[in-house]
Amino acid sequence: MKLICGVDLGGTKLSAALFDQMGVLIGKEITHDHVNETTDGIIRVISELVQNLLKNNNVLLPDIVGIGVGLAGHILYRKGIIITTSNFKVTFTNYPFVEKMKTYFPGVKILLDNDANVQALGESMYGAGKGFESMVFMTISTGVGAGIVLNGKLLRGKNGTAGEIGHSIIEYKSKYMCTCGNYGCAMAHSSGLFLPELYRYKLESGMTSSIGLNLDNISSFDGHFLKKGVNEGDNISISIMNESADIIGTSVFNIHKILDPDAVVLGGGLLQLGDKYMSRIKNQFSFLMQDMMESEMEIKLSEIGADAGLLGAASLLLE
Amino acid sequence: MKLICGVDLGGTKLSAALFDQMGVLIGKEITHDHVNETTDGIIRVISELVQNLLKNNNVLLPDIVGIGVGLAGHILYRKGIIITTSNFKVTFTNYPFVEKMKTYFPGVKILLDNDANVQALGESMYGAGKGFESMVFMTISTGVGAGIVLNGKLLRGKNGTAGEIGHSIIEYKSKYMCTCGNYGCAMAHSSGLFLPELYRYKLESGMTSSIGLNLDNISSFDGHFLKKGVNEGDNISISIMNESADIIGTSVFNIHKILDPDAVVLGGGLLQLGDKYMSRIKNQFSFLMQDMMESEMEIKLSEIGADAGLLGAASLLLE
Repeated sequence: MKLICGVDLGGTKLSAALFDQMGVLIGKEITHDHVNETTDGIIRVISELVQNLLKNNNVLLPDIVGIGVGLAGHILYRKGIIITTSNFKVTFTNYPFVEKMKTYFPGVKILLDNDANVQALGESMYGAGKGFESMVFMTISTGVGAGIVLNGKLLRGKNGTAGEIGHSIIEYKSKYMCTCGNYGCAMAHSSGLFLPELYRYKLESGMTSSIGLNLDNISSFDGHFLKKGVNEGDNISISIMNESADIIGTSVFNIHKILDPDAVVLGGGLLQLGDKYMSRIKNQFSFLMQDMMESEMEIKLSEIGADAGLLGAASLLLE
Repeated sequence: MKLICGVDLGGTKLSAALFDQMGVLIGKEITHDHVNETTDGIIRVISELVQNLLKNNNVLLPDIVGIGVGLAGHILYRKGIIITTSNFKVTFTNYPFVEKMKTYFPGVKILLDNDANVQALGESMYGAGKGFESMVFMTISTGVGAGIVLNGKLLRGKNGTAGEIGHSIIEYKSKYMCTCGNYGCAMAHSSGLFLPELYRYKLESGMTSSIGLNLDNISSFDGHFLKKGVNEGDNISISIMNESADIIGTSVFNIHKILDPDAVVLGGGLLQLGDKYMSRIKNQFSFLMQDMMESEMEIKLSEIGADAGLLGAASLLLE
């Protein structure tokens, strides 16, 4: 059976891997050579990485189903175009990614989607979402994203932007401004990018912190600091973790109300906070569910782990 | 070509109608005889009404595809069971509706779904949603409900409760309590059932009203009063209409973020407020969209009108 090739294109790390169709890793290559390249240069670095990957594993192009690529960005899946990105030194703008890739791999099937979508598909085929007719994968990381899988297929929507639960408004009268310019987006209350802001709000509301950050150096308050603070019993850190979990639990409830899926799978960096965080998310969901009569929706942790982006990208070829 | 039969079962009005498969009305019967009946009695009244409808139009059972039924309630579509209702004098609880109907119509295809879903399907097949690959119908009435149609099929979800956008949380720290027991549900800020409460909040916040209602008689503040107040330039009425429109516009934005459909179709009693209301909903949506690059999602008014429930119910047979 042919292999599937996945590419995970991040701002600082670019990786490519081969898997068999059961999701077993055959080989992997990693580089950082793309970081300072132009957009076309990044395509060249990707193609070199994939060529090396194939060569090092004695695999020929006819032996693979194709190449699936995942990246953080706004993507038109059907056209293979990147509308815009924000995680790279250069910005891809209305960039014909698939067409450009095909100049290096003529005749090869090449598919492109955003990182939340590919991870959702990967979890649904090989991870915590396996066996469910409908599932939503939600990642709580720098931002909050989601991918919706119905009957084994991603729901992409008209523009390919379905699943943007992080930018749905969860607090209509919020004072928390999101990077998108709106107030009250779920991610502005809960995700990594906003940790310094959340910390600032807590300080300004009169709370005190034992981790030694003040208004001058709060920009260094990231996920690692948050975890450290929580573990050391720091008031502000615990309060931020709880607020994030309550907002995510409420978002999971909203997903339930709107889509009624079989399961919601949670992944992303903030889940590293561990069981305290996950339990609170589940508790908030149960609190809002009260005694409603729907049969229980499962809330599960992502199971794929470190290679989620790679396996997810590769799984596009089997959708 | 066979006809389709739709039944619209409301608390005070029960109607049944025959349509051809192009959605043209062939005949209609209305009764109120079910109002004081038991659950089984209601089934008997429905069957008599349908039998009369067929007889009066010289239609035999083999001439119809089947009977589709819509009602306000919590329904397990696949099993044809009503889990619960709140709009009838009696409560249907885990009631095998389809099975009971089949005792009167053995061998006839009988389908049951909730009112928002059947209206969504009707609009998608015959109304404002026609021709779109994906559309969401949202009704702003006593409560707020929605039906999601993807590729001509309703997205019902695991329990059949998908589309409950009215109970999604839109203001996390709201003081507005919903009938479901949660705070901040979209419907608690925007729908008919909550008009007296919204009026009370405005009075208590110090606003004055020119329509002669005070804390003792606000329970009569309904959709008609609201429309009258708005037309007469009453402060509180205008403020309530605007708040409702802003919340509905925000809900439409959330639908766009999560599902990215081709169109959202709006119906239900509050749209009787007219263009002032609809324009404000659209403005709030545009305000939140800012200059986001997605191609425009259409926001349209329901087109089916008075027989939406009947035609929607009948359209279940062609899903």
